[in-house]
Amino acid sequence: VTVPAPLLATADDAAAIGAIMHRCATEFDEPTPGAEVLAERARQALLTDSTTFVLAGAAGFAQVRFRPSVWSGRTDCHLEDLYVIPPERGRGIGRALLDRAVELAGSRGASHVELATGSGDVEARGLYETSGFTNLEDGEPMLFYMREL
Amino acid sequence: VTVPAPLLATADDAAAIGAIMHRCATEFDEPTPGAEVLAERARQALLTDSTTFVLAGAAGFAQVRFRPSVWSGRTDCHLEDLYVIPPERGRGIGRALLDRAVELAGSRGASHVELATGSGDVEARGLYETSGFTNLEDGEPMLFYMREL
Repeated sequence: VTVPAPLLATADDAAAIGAIMHRCATEFDEPTPGAEVLAERARQALLTDSTTFVLAGAAGFAQVRFRPSVWSGRTDCHLEDLYVIPPERGRGIGRALLDRAVELAGSRGASHVELATGSGDVEARGLYETSGFTNLEDGEPMLFYMREL
Repeated sequence: VTVPAPLLATADDAAAIGAIMHRCATEFDEPTPGAEVLAERARQALLTDSTTFVLAGAAGFAQVRFRPSVWSGRTDCHLEDLYVIPPERGRGIGRALLDRAVELAGSRGASHVELATGSGDVEARGLYETSGFTNLEDGEPMLFYMREL
């Protein structure tokens, strides 16, 4: 099976991004303002250097965010989302999106790529761990904490 | 014991920030470019809306970073650092810094504050968990992954 190479999104992709983000949130019972609002926010975000998207057609997407780092003097890359629609899973699209996102981070001069994921999402963890990611620092797992405001 | 109220840093605090960041990195055997380079980067960062610092005199600091979110349409707040120098620990300075950082995030309209920490840092985890932070999502711990580039 050939996996089409994921492409960096342009402003023309905003509607497609809004649609797949909404689908992703709906699948996981996460709050979503709807595809059109997400599309408009994505359109605005694509005008900046801080957020971009990688698209595998309508099959999957990655949201990739950048932020300057005082520690490194470089940019930090945060992989916000990595999602493939259910009927397209198991074809390597997730790994192709991840590889493209990491390549993009390198081309932007990022010192590292970071992400948060649930410990029970063994499929995603397997993908990350076989792509050079680790959740260990000095031999112990790093945890991700959040406080809603 | 009275803990002085932590203050939001201004550009005048850049040298103090560089000094305490360097001390923090040295204590934990993390790479550091030195106090002066960090001070200059902090000075540049303080000119932007994306990074700020909270200082408890020379006793401790928090680095607080903001980033617009497509998901929420608001700003996300990431607590990058929370550090108190060893002789000043145990006086509540860490909690005062954390409270001030969370208050700042609220005043900027952030939807949440997030952070990563080692699972073995039980003192920090206790502070976060008694301050309304959770590392659980749908009952399972969230993990933080990183890949160096």
